Amino acid sequence: MFRQTSEFHQWFAEQRRVQRHRVTPTGLDRLDGWSFEPETGNIRHRSGRFFSIEGVEVETDNRETPSWAQPIIVQPENGILGLLVKEFAGVPHILLQAKMEPGNVNLLQMSPTVQATRSNFTRVHQGGAVPYLEHFVAPRTGRVLFDTLQSEQGSWFLGKRNRNMIIEVDGDVPVRDGFCWLTLDQIGELLNVENLINMDTRTVLSGLPDGWAVQGRGTQAEGRTLHSGAEVLSWFTEAKATHRLERRQIPLSQVKGWAEGGGEVAHESGRYFRITGVDVAAEGREVARWSQPVLAPVGRGVIAFLTRRIGGTRHLLVRTRTEAGSFDLLEMGPTVQANPANYEELPVGSRPRFLDEVLAAAPARVLLDVVHSEEGGRFYHAENRYLVVEADEDVPLDAGPDFLWVTPHQLGVLIRHSNHVNVEARNLLTCVRFLR
Amino acid sequence: MFRQTSEFHQWFAEQRRVQRHRVTPTGLDRLDGWSFEPETGNIRHRSGRFFSIEGVEVETDNRETPSWAQPIIVQPENGILGLLVKEFAGVPHILLQAKMEPGNVNLLQMSPTVQATRSNFTRVHQGGAVPYLEHFVAPRTGRVLFDTLQSEQGSWFLGKRNRNMIIEVDGDVPVRDGFCWLTLDQIGELLNVENLINMDTRTVLSGLPDGWAVQGRGTQAEGRTLHSGAEVLSWFTEAKATHRLERRQIPLSQVKGWAEGGGEVAHESGRYFRITGVDVAAEGREVARWSQPVLAPVGRGVIAFLTRRIGGTRHLLVRTRTEAGSFDLLEMGPTVQANPANYEELPVGSRPRFLDEVLAAAPARVLLDVVHSEEGGRFYHAENRYLVVEADEDVPLDAGPDFLWVTPHQLGVLIRHSNHVNVEARNLLTCVRFLR
Repeated sequence: MFRQTSEFHQWFAEQRRVQRHRVTPTGLDRLDGWSFEPETGNIRHRSGRFFSIEGVEVETDNRETPSWAQPIIVQPENGILGLLVKEFAGVPHILLQAKMEPGNVNLLQMSPTVQATRSNFTRVHQGGAVPYLEHFVAPRTGRVLFDTLQSEQGSWFLGKRNRNMIIEVDGDVPVRDGFCWLTLDQIGELLNVENLINMDTRTVLSGLPDGWAVQGRGTQAEGRTLHSGAEVLSWFTEAKATHRLERRQIPLSQVKGWAEGGGEVAHESGRYFRITGVDVAAEGREVARWSQPVLAPVGRGVIAFLTRRIGGTRHLLVRTRTEAGSFDLLEMGPTVQANPANYEELPVGSRPRFLDEVLAAAPARVLLDVVHSEEGGRFYHAENRYLVVEADEDVPLDAGPDFLWVTPHQLGVLIRHSNHVNVEARNLLTCVRFLR
Repeated sequence: MFRQTSEFHQWFAEQRRVQRHRVTPTGLDRLDGWSFEPETGNIRHRSGRFFSIEGVEVETDNRETPSWAQPIIVQPENGILGLLVKEFAGVPHILLQAKMEPGNVNLLQMSPTVQATRSNFTRVHQGGAVPYLEHFVAPRTGRVLFDTLQSEQGSWFLGKRNRNMIIEVDGDVPVRDGFCWLTLDQIGELLNVENLINMDTRTVLSGLPDGWAVQGRGTQAEGRTLHSGAEVLSWFTEAKATHRLERRQIPLSQVKGWAEGGGEVAHESGRYFRITGVDVAAEGREVARWSQPVLAPVGRGVIAFLTRRIGGTRHLLVRTRTEAGSFDLLEMGPTVQANPANYEELPVGSRPRFLDEVLAAAPARVLLDVVHSEEGGRFYHAENRYLVVEADEDVPLDAGPDFLWVTPHQLGVLIRHSNHVNVEARNLLTCVRFLR
């Protein structure tokens, strides 16, 4: 335990020193155990497990572009992202791990107590046992605070979900090498540091029971909301009932505009993302040495909420979001979720709504501006700029059918159910809840 | 409005007299506009709209039978099932319609205010406008009480969902021919009549705000629950994370064990269901004359909750349920959902759990026993016996990993979200809530 976060930073620096990892970018053609399937061009592991890179064709009326094809990661198995909570002297602490993922900016970031795919814990990797897993699989002894299957990046994953869990325990928990207890206050402070609290930790934190993150932080208790809970769900239902997503899985080799060459798969324009490979030599992981494909986004994305007080209560502007890999047609996303570079050559009317407002906001209106990266197990240096921006007066209470002003509390209630709120909005909500 | 339900029965008898419909069973080969697609054997309408009958192959670890193939109804479009609510002299009334569906037992049953497929209201049928639809589509003026996409029979429909809506209005609502206002008390009474309140009405009623149905009915306010809300959701997540459903759509002609002959598609054993046709001559419908395929179950099903008081509060035993057409692997179903005839030749250990207990219960333990039929627009005389049975002492509080004791209130909260509670459990819950 750390009295101050400066002590954490010392500990973390020591972790960087003792955990010796080496990640080397390499070509897809040089990955051990991975290859292009002859008939389809899909990228698969020889075991048939883990994940594969395939193609998908999409038509929808809920995006700037009505139809497209793209490579996509197919990973049908779900894993566990678990946080262990325990009170010390009446103060809740969360057990995090300084863990390497090959795609992480800075390699080491703070992961949940458990971050394991089913392959991990059923030992397909033939690695060591997953520490603390016993707290998250039956028969458990702790008290469950949160346990839901949550979607991950729908732009890059086909219908993928992970089990997000928060378990509270009373008994002794030995602290293993690389793990540490942090208070919610400390986590709140560390969320302002770039690329430190990893995506998996942020998504699970979005399921913290209401009030935990904001305790003593000056955030008001829930006041009047613009819309009732029934109205929020009705708006969501209306969007699902009226929008359209037609999707067809296709072989990777038939994805139009994308080609393999130079050891990677990329779009002819150089935009969006590349599929490439990494070679990993790791310590403190189940397996000490492996190589794998990774998805490397081109450019840095923007994930932003517009916010305003309505009737004295803070509201966030959510937007329905359909993605190539959406599990169920659409989920609620942030106000803006875009990679500005992808839209540079599109006509002005085709730019995502509110993107320009968010990027051009006066500094006084910017409540949060921090860069975090997405899951380093599949994505390579996938940075996003997370922003919370006080809305201009001219952003209306009714911002159009795909937008709705909801409170952080309302969003938190919806997060208890699968496939309501997408990972970008969940992770940004975590930052909002810890805002001072 | 009716002062007593006897007045309703007079009105309904009059409706039977004035609404002149004729439904004639006929062979699939004699349906106007419908045919077997040459390559697949799938049954389709020449317009490509409405629905089709195709095949599906299923493997799962969550049923008595680990794998099977079957015909299934594919209907990607969702429709609206809407109830209009209005207070008269402070008493909420619901507007229902005495409506014919070709598969209905007794032809005429009480439907929701609006029961329309998207084809209906986008006028593919080229029929008249749907009455009262304006209260359910944007821009609406009423107050939304409930609005969710809900699954329908997963054994017979592939991932089908309908939009279930309850809208409260204040203004004048002209009562059209065939419609009437009923109080919740009256509906509660009529739910005890066989084959009168149709499936669509029952599913939407399950979304009534808590307390509406039970007001003044002696049902206690929510007391102690055996499991917290987080525990219920965790149990549901655990089931989804550990069970398996692998599904593949196949041509109807390749469904093993099923064959076409004599104008119908049936299983070689004579079990399960038949796909056959009906010819309809109707009055008071969008289209006066049509023919269509229907799914006719063989034998009468059983849909039952075991119930008991735990800590003074009534609980229901729910079971996770995976079906060929489940939208998302599984939903919560009733304790028992089975067609006893389908299990006659199976070894004793393969019979669904609690089926025998429910069927053999002493009369004093049977709190509800009424026959209702499923949607008459697709199903022909699909009767189920709806039962609520007081559990024996020897049914434990922990009845196994696929079972959980929850309260009607907890189930009602989950029903506000899509794909948590299946249609059989929702419809039985409606009966439970109105139990005297």
